[in-house]
Amino acid sequence: MEKPKTTLSRSEFLKRTGLMTIGGGLLGLAACHSSPQQTGSSSQQAAPSVASSSAQVAVAGGEVVEDPTHLPRVAADPSKLPPSPTYNSPQVHEVHLTVEETLAELKKGVIFRFMPFNGQVPGPMIRVRQGDTIDLHFTSSKKNKYPHNIDFHSVYGTGGGAVALTVGPGQTKHIRFKVMYPGAFIYHCAVPDLDMHISSGMFGMMVVEPPEGLPPVDREFYIGQHEVYVKPPVNDHTEALFDMESMLQEIPTYVVFNGAFNGLTAERYGPMQAKQKERVRIFFVNGGPNLSSSFHPIGNVWTHAWRDGGLANSPEKYLQTINVPPGSCAVVEMDLPVPETIHLADHSITRYARQGLRADIVVSGKPVPDIFNDHP
Amino acid sequence: MEKPKTTLSRSEFLKRTGLMTIGGGLLGLAACHSSPQQTGSSSQQAAPSVASSSAQVAVAGGEVVEDPTHLPRVAADPSKLPPSPTYNSPQVHEVHLTVEETLAELKKGVIFRFMPFNGQVPGPMIRVRQGDTIDLHFTSSKKNKYPHNIDFHSVYGTGGGAVALTVGPGQTKHIRFKVMYPGAFIYHCAVPDLDMHISSGMFGMMVVEPPEGLPPVDREFYIGQHEVYVKPPVNDHTEALFDMESMLQEIPTYVVFNGAFNGLTAERYGPMQAKQKERVRIFFVNGGPNLSSSFHPIGNVWTHAWRDGGLANSPEKYLQTINVPPGSCAVVEMDLPVPETIHLADHSITRYARQGLRADIVVSGKPVPDIFNDHP
Amino acid sequence: MEKPKTTLSRSEFLKRTGLMTIGGGLLGLAACHSSPQQTGSSSQQAAPSVASSSAQVAVAGGEVVEDPTHLPRVAADPSKLPPSPTYNSPQVHEVHLTVEETLAELKKGVIFRFMPFNGQVPGPMIRVRQGDTIDLHFTSSKKNKYPHNIDFHSVYGTGGGAVALTVGPGQTKHIRFKVMYPGAFIYHCAVPDLDMHISSGMFGMMVVEPPEGLPPVDREFYIGQHEVYVKPPVNDHTEALFDMESMLQEIPTYVVFNGAFNGLTAERYGPMQAKQKERVRIFFVNGGPNLSSSFHPIGNVWTHAWRDGGLANSPEKYLQTINVPPGSCAVVEMDLPVPETIHLADHSITRYARQGLRADIVVSGKPVPDIFNDHP
Repeated sequence: MEKPKTTLSRSEFLKRTGLMTIGGGLLGLAACHSSPQQTGSSSQQAAPSVASSSAQVAVAGGEVVEDPTHLPRVAADPSKLPPSPTYNSPQVHEVHLTVEETLAELKKGVIFRFMPFNGQVPGPMIRVRQGDTIDLHFTSSKKNKYPHNIDFHSVYGTGGGAVALTVGPGQTKHIRFKVMYPGAFIYHCAVPDLDMHISSGMFGMMVVEPPEGLPPVDREFYIGQHEVYVKPPVNDHTEALFDMESMLQEIPTYVVFNGAFNGLTAERYGPMQAKQKERVRIFFVNGGPNLSSSFHPIGNVWTHAWRDGGLANSPEKYLQTINVPPGSCAVVEMDLPVPETIHLADHSITRYARQGLRADIVVSGKPVPDIFNDHP
Repeated sequence: MEKPKTTLSRSEFLKRTGLMTIGGGLLGLAACHSSPQQTGSSSQQAAPSVASSSAQVAVAGGEVVEDPTHLPRVAADPSKLPPSPTYNSPQVHEVHLTVEETLAELKKGVIFRFMPFNGQVPGPMIRVRQGDTIDLHFTSSKKNKYPHNIDFHSVYGTGGGAVALTVGPGQTKHIRFKVMYPGAFIYHCAVPDLDMHISSGMFGMMVVEPPEGLPPVDREFYIGQHEVYVKPPVNDHTEALFDMESMLQEIPTYVVFNGAFNGLTAERYGPMQAKQKERVRIFFVNGGPNLSSSFHPIGNVWTHAWRDGGLANSPEKYLQTINVPPGSCAVVEMDLPVPETIHLADHSITRYARQGLRADIVVSGKPVPDIFNDHP
Repeated sequence: MEKPKTTLSRSEFLKRTGLMTIGGGLLGLAACHSSPQQTGSSSQQAAPSVASSSAQVAVAGGEVVEDPTHLPRVAADPSKLPPSPTYNSPQVHEVHLTVEETLAELKKGVIFRFMPFNGQVPGPMIRVRQGDTIDLHFTSSKKNKYPHNIDFHSVYGTGGGAVALTVGPGQTKHIRFKVMYPGAFIYHCAVPDLDMHISSGMFGMMVVEPPEGLPPVDREFYIGQHEVYVKPPVNDHTEALFDMESMLQEIPTYVVFNGAFNGLTAERYGPMQAKQKERVRIFFVNGGPNLSSSFHPIGNVWTHAWRDGGLANSPEKYLQTINVPPGSCAVVEMDLPVPETIHLADHSITRYARQGLRADIVVSGKPVPDIFNDHP
């Protein structure tokens, strides 16, 4: 499939062609909203405008949800992650991952069909030590419609394990592998439509610590970035349909941390918390599927940064903004000399300003005017 | 605000829809030129074609300039930058930054409303030493329409100082901070529409030298890259309006060094000058707001490169092209063994070929056929 | 030339405007298919629809090929590259490069006009040692239509040699230069339309080894990535025309390794071959012209990576995915502890999934269940 040249949002298209008339009467509209598989054109249908209608009409496969407030949260809690390994000899770990295609609110009023690992985006962090062995079990819910699998970047083996782990609805598969090299690695679905599945939140991180471990820090967080490509929803009760064409153009509708529009801020699930004088480490995974992140902490700096999650290398010091390619990771640390609110951002800053890519860390403590004085 | 799918330039749109007729008669045109806030459609108005008319008609908020040749230069002189600090104990610096929204010619025939710091793009370089304290005063001209502030990447504190520095027209604010870590850091406006303000040139660099200073070089330059998103101007006397939609798509109209289309070349303000056998350092800041730069010197190589402006790290050697994310910097050095003209470029090379991203350095001296012989 | 806002593929546009009618009758179509130089509009012409017709009609400059199966292969054999230099004193090398504009099948059914160096994409690898001298002869076939030249990133001198090497059809030019610094460097055409020429495959790599050489490995491969921007071909006998507008938007139709859609896989020219326990090195060049590559080996990891081709620096260890800017290179190595099929990919993964960016390495050997067990 080749990349189409462009798509127009319905309202944009209509404004430009003059097909939008006062009162919302529409001509030639239906094709704009049909999925790629549908070519029929029922231009007589009086389609409601996106903004003004809340009538629950199912169109083009979009599922209708009577009460979106009851939809589950998929945003992973960034403060829930496993501790650093403390054992002294290689271990064998039993790990169970599942996927269940799940409607959730990407943002208030936008219902999206996620494909989260174990119900969360990013999927659970798996944290082991170089030389350990993983017994990995992967199960697809019998409610699913799509095939799924997992590619671990921490695995030597075809597809990073994806071929052996390909499952249909209701199936479970099992592989065993030894982690041979250290680093922070993404895992993600790798079926032929992998870009769509990753864009539906199907990615997570495995941290393979080097034998000597990582330097101690006071607090750790776990954050994943990814892009969402959807058509405008008919209304806030109807699933927003995946937009294959905008994905082909790499022009997402939303770019988010932990699967929710500005999810880790006061406007949604609340900010992260930290304390003055702590050193904070962030394990960051960029699912993509397509865009690099320019990861930056507004009001702070990366004291240490392991570029591309390469824990076998010495970290770089005092970087403001670090490139994290899609399908890669970064491990970064901050010091907190003053109380402040830090805004995590992709410094492709329109994504931060307009597309949902915010996460806040509130640092409590006492002002240090010698370092930062906002009323001198 | 979500990313719209696409926009069409007027001429493109008309060609495609067949609405362009011989002689330039137009239908359904006005909406194409209206700003996002304007929805009125006066299709009876006989709008002039972009190319053929120079009639001064004000449309959609675009200001008309009787004599564009009198507009000020905003392109910063790349050879004007402060010297390296020579003092031996921490200093306190009084720094005054202002912003005045200013019409200037982005290129001949394209008038754009810049938001330059102290009248220049990039804003003045502030050059200090780790441990110094800055008394920063920020003033917004009373002629301005928009709120403004500054986020310094070199600051520990909420918003990098932006919250405390937010000013309306005619206001001044003041903060004091100590620079705690070394590096080359961007500063930029950070109001909610920060992407639009950065895209209007509202960014600059603060260099915080490490205690031991930087290695001596023979010559230094200061260059900033950023993207401009505008709608086609009605004519060369009328302000080209900002195009929010193309910014949302991260598809700029122009990408420029120091705020001018091929500004630092013979076709505009003239090239930079250097001499054979010198070592030249470039302080490079990528304002973005959205695109990475692949910064490359055509006909030369980066002898040393401090990636992401990380002066606390050892420089990398002999890099041809270095990724500089938006909201980041690079400090790079070149040796000049032969006379030549070096073209600075973003190696996303269509920007260099077509969108205004050129800056030249003319290296005077005597040919060294042993190294480069173009007539052997 | 500024970046236009967007383009619509013919079929997309027609679907959206309702101009596509049953039976393929078209209105206002011709302009969509004309090249930038052509403005005529013969809307009466009954153009066939893209999908349904195979009639051989020449339109808008697209050349018709009676038997595409006879078109030459341009995909460089990734296993053909020069050996590492073994001499102990600086040498002078005679190098002859040619370009001949050549129709070839980008993928089955898509004929594209390549501009390959010496008939291959990427052009031949030139492999020398720091301090060597190159006598470079460049010839343009007298069958060509366009001017051409070469910019070597390994050269100190204006345009990397491009000015002195600019040739018209049938011409030859000659320069001599000494390679002064080590690294893996792109060479590419650098005429004013250089983005179009690079996008037509006109790029290759020069490796300048440091005096001490590179560490020994068991096997080496040579891979180039680049983007292709074309309009939909009329049929599979007709040349797909270059699409300047999608290049201006940096939204390619195809992104490929070695100039062919999934070329280095079983579906086309066959995968690469390697053996268990070998160490494999890949010399990777990203021609662009515009997009960064996030280069990743599916099912493996980069044991060593010289970022940006910087062979003067120590390699980074155990990176999953490495950013390679357009106009840059990377030298990467893998270990092969288990038999597997490795898929090389750009982890902007839609390019891998849909746009032709696959290359496989089949690693033969005996399973090592201790490391990877897909049936535990």
